[in-house]
Amino acid sequence: MNMEKKLRTIATLRARSFSASLDQVELQNGQIKERIRIDHPEAVAIIPLLSESEIIMVRQFRYAIGKDTLEIPAGKVDAGEKPADAVHRELLEETGYKADHIEHLCSYQPAIGYSNEIIHIYVARGMHKISRLLDEAEISSCEIMDLGALRKLLADGEILDGKTMLALGFL
Amino acid sequence: MNMEKKLRTIATLRARSFSASLDQVELQNGQIKERIRIDHPEAVAIIPLLSESEIIMVRQFRYAIGKDTLEIPAGKVDAGEKPADAVHRELLEETGYKADHIEHLCSYQPAIGYSNEIIHIYVARGMHKISRLLDEAEISSCEIMDLGALRKLLADGEILDGKTMLALGFL
Repeated sequence: MNMEKKLRTIATLRARSFSASLDQVELQNGQIKERIRIDHPEAVAIIPLLSESEIIMVRQFRYAIGKDTLEIPAGKVDAGEKPADAVHRELLEETGYKADHIEHLCSYQPAIGYSNEIIHIYVARGMHKISRLLDEAEISSCEIMDLGALRKLLADGEILDGKTMLALGFL
Repeated sequence: MNMEKKLRTIATLRARSFSASLDQVELQNGQIKERIRIDHPEAVAIIPLLSESEIIMVRQFRYAIGKDTLEIPAGKVDAGEKPADAVHRELLEETGYKADHIEHLCSYQPAIGYSNEIIHIYVARGMHKISRLLDEAEISSCEIMDLGALRKLLADGEILDGKTMLALGFL
């Protein structure tokens, strides 16, 4: 195995819930390189099914790509929180719905080249609207979409978000 | 649309081919927040099919997750390079093979929460081994795998790499 040994952290940038560091590392062959790594908490992403043909999507401005995106609801797991509890919390915050049943579909690492993030994907069923208050600082709007129309957006390359593409492959 | 306006870049970390910045931004509601963003070149990932049931995978140490992973070959597109040319270059560097035909399957953004990276996924067919020299600083080994065995690793959660999971959904 080609291990890479950390020699030192040169500098770290910290945001509220995650950080980016520049590390100096030594490769197996003695070469010295610098690696950027994001230290990120676990995250959850949810497929909220209103029926077998309808899904709740959220529209959100994503600063890193400078665009408004249509995505499945998602968010970071808080310290000490269980992923399943984060699913219920994020669902309520981002859509105003509560789910009777949630089921874990898969977990994956979106960007192993520079991030330790792991995203747990769940499907949520038995949805009840219980609030009109959304996380308005983050979410522009919440849209109920037909799965067929959503698949067409994906096939046309109109949705490029990895977690949304991977999740919808399960449906 | 909930735009976020950049006020300033507080600090930037630079690696050889990409950077991480901490920006101060202003939300639509006037709130000031800090955002980490990775500025990353385009990338390609390749499904190299030796036959309809055999794929070439690479084993690689990934510093950000501190682990050895089994993945499809992938890499960054160089400045001025076309994605299709990067596919042929990375395939040769990481596996020693040349492909007669490549086909673009989809493009996606792996981590829109903090990175502008876009990955173009290609399938490669008509493979010829033309070199034994691999990029040994990066790649530990190159393994020919049966697609059925690979699907079992994915189903068992033994492979968590997003691009590999998404790509194999096309087969």
